[in-house]
Amino acid sequence: MPDNDKSHIVGVDLGGTKILAGVFTPQLKCLGSQKMTTKAERGADAVIERIERCVRDAVDECDLSLKNIRGLGIGSPGSVDAESGKVIFAGNLGWKDVPLRKELEKRLDVPVFVGNDCKNCMLGVHEVEFGGKPRDMVGIFLGTGIGGGLVFDGKLYTGHNGVAGELGHMVIDAGGPKCTCGNRGCFEALASRTAIFRRIKDAVKEGEKTVLVDMLGPDLADMRSGDLRKALKRGDKLVGKIIEDAAHYTGVAVANLVNILNPELVVIGGGVVEQLADEMMPVIEKTAKDGAFPGATRDLEIRASKLGDDAGITGGAVLVTQRQK
Amino acid sequence: MPDNDKSHIVGVDLGGTKILAGVFTPQLKCLGSQKMTTKAERGADAVIERIERCVRDAVDECDLSLKNIRGLGIGSPGSVDAESGKVIFAGNLGWKDVPLRKELEKRLDVPVFVGNDCKNCMLGVHEVEFGGKPRDMVGIFLGTGIGGGLVFDGKLYTGHNGVAGELGHMVIDAGGPKCTCGNRGCFEALASRTAIFRRIKDAVKEGEKTVLVDMLGPDLADMRSGDLRKALKRGDKLVGKIIEDAAHYTGVAVANLVNILNPELVVIGGGVVEQLADEMMPVIEKTAKDGAFPGATRDLEIRASKLGDDAGITGGAVLVTQRQK
Repeated sequence: MPDNDKSHIVGVDLGGTKILAGVFTPQLKCLGSQKMTTKAERGADAVIERIERCVRDAVDECDLSLKNIRGLGIGSPGSVDAESGKVIFAGNLGWKDVPLRKELEKRLDVPVFVGNDCKNCMLGVHEVEFGGKPRDMVGIFLGTGIGGGLVFDGKLYTGHNGVAGELGHMVIDAGGPKCTCGNRGCFEALASRTAIFRRIKDAVKEGEKTVLVDMLGPDLADMRSGDLRKALKRGDKLVGKIIEDAAHYTGVAVANLVNILNPELVVIGGGVVEQLADEMMPVIEKTAKDGAFPGATRDLEIRASKLGDDAGITGGAVLVTQRQK
Repeated sequence: MPDNDKSHIVGVDLGGTKILAGVFTPQLKCLGSQKMTTKAERGADAVIERIERCVRDAVDECDLSLKNIRGLGIGSPGSVDAESGKVIFAGNLGWKDVPLRKELEKRLDVPVFVGNDCKNCMLGVHEVEFGGKPRDMVGIFLGTGIGGGLVFDGKLYTGHNGVAGELGHMVIDAGGPKCTCGNRGCFEALASRTAIFRRIKDAVKEGEKTVLVDMLGPDLADMRSGDLRKALKRGDKLVGKIIEDAAHYTGVAVANLVNILNPELVVIGGGVVEQLADEMMPVIEKTAKDGAFPGATRDLEIRASKLGDDAGITGGAVLVTQRQK
């Protein structure tokens, strides 16, 4: 690729546990991606150095140089000031007022655009997976936590302070388990990967049987969503019940959102659903359609996102195309 | 008023128990209103005849004639087809496919516009009470049931099938009391007038004391929201506790909506709050602000609507100005 072709785009998804960087063509086709652990405990400077390295590796893997990159879009957890490109606060990174845009532009010498991780996922799903077509759409991303994104009248809706879409902290079981946010019975405390893992560990402590103990040892170290899929394939009843419950609560949350917002499309994404779509989606769809009003479910589609973990980097690339217009 | 002045507007709020008709100036000032019971059990024709009578009485009370009316906007419960002016389905009226617009235009000889009751309330609150200023706003109307309205980017948001805003059927206590919709723990089953009255009656049956029994007799016949206010003024502990619980659940619902939608303004309206704003609003506000994320509550205002029962007729008048542009 000649140095004067500056048409490619980099999308980065910065998470609490890993950094993912992808390289995209002008048509937003992903040419390749690179993954690295975040190591947030080493501090913001070290994390930014790792983002730089991850981006350089991804670009090099695609036989390109940074000179071929027109811009980089990155999604960060927490609250972000889109104008200045600062991460104002991100609890799971331990960040406060980190000038992410400035630091990355200094290191990589490409224009950088900073967004929120879940909103970037929503941009990726809406613009690339569904071609920008749905007018009214809700995205739910089930991972370590639960986040979301909203599209109204064809545009990403961000609310008065830019923080709309905190679907994970919708209380759906007022007397339910304690959430990290301080409330009880949040959707996230009932159906995130963290909630699922906690329920499995609690059950094992209480003497219940699961093949996960044979697979991972008695303290279930390094459990991942993929392990749950393996356990389900082996007919594990405990994991089956807990996944069904999580899918049920997700269905209740979807019904609430459908009654409130009457979207035409609800997309469920994130690592949990990427691994467990076959088991979870039928339960989610039935619970949601039984729970919501017929007037709101008449033409409703509920779909699992096919972008999986690539939603964030795809949305990062979309962010560049939108901001550099 | 001369016959050739055709500048005034009629707004009608059609409810399950009463019909309210108001007459408005071109500047949307209410000149007067008239109330009549609905008597839905007599059938759609009889109800439409009562709407006609209520409108004629309201216009006459204001020393006007129907010749001075440029249009009539009416809000009906249930689902409505705005184009044809048909009420497609309204459970609490027992209506299915009632051509409300056609019938009223035949009887009154003025242009008629039909909307949904809660959406009309929202139009009234947004356009008249708050001068159309809030860009992102949620309205919650606590009455016999609970309904809502949404304004995004300055416009009423109605969703893909025009039925967005069913806030009353957001599940907030998954194991909670049964709702008329078939689900458990809906906001409406916890905080509507119906839910409050049911809890009071259940408590009395179980032998708890309340001054309402002295006021209304042992079966608490014809209890109204105003009776609750009187009981509270007399220091009634049972009513105090039940109203506090309803306010708490309303606060949980507001926190959910604030986390999801990040509005700048949440307005609480309807008959229950009109009577009990002093008792309920501080609990609602504290629960909502404690429960929602700081990023979403930074500039958030939570207000009781001052329009009370007039929200629906005011919104009916707004509907005319919007559709007759």
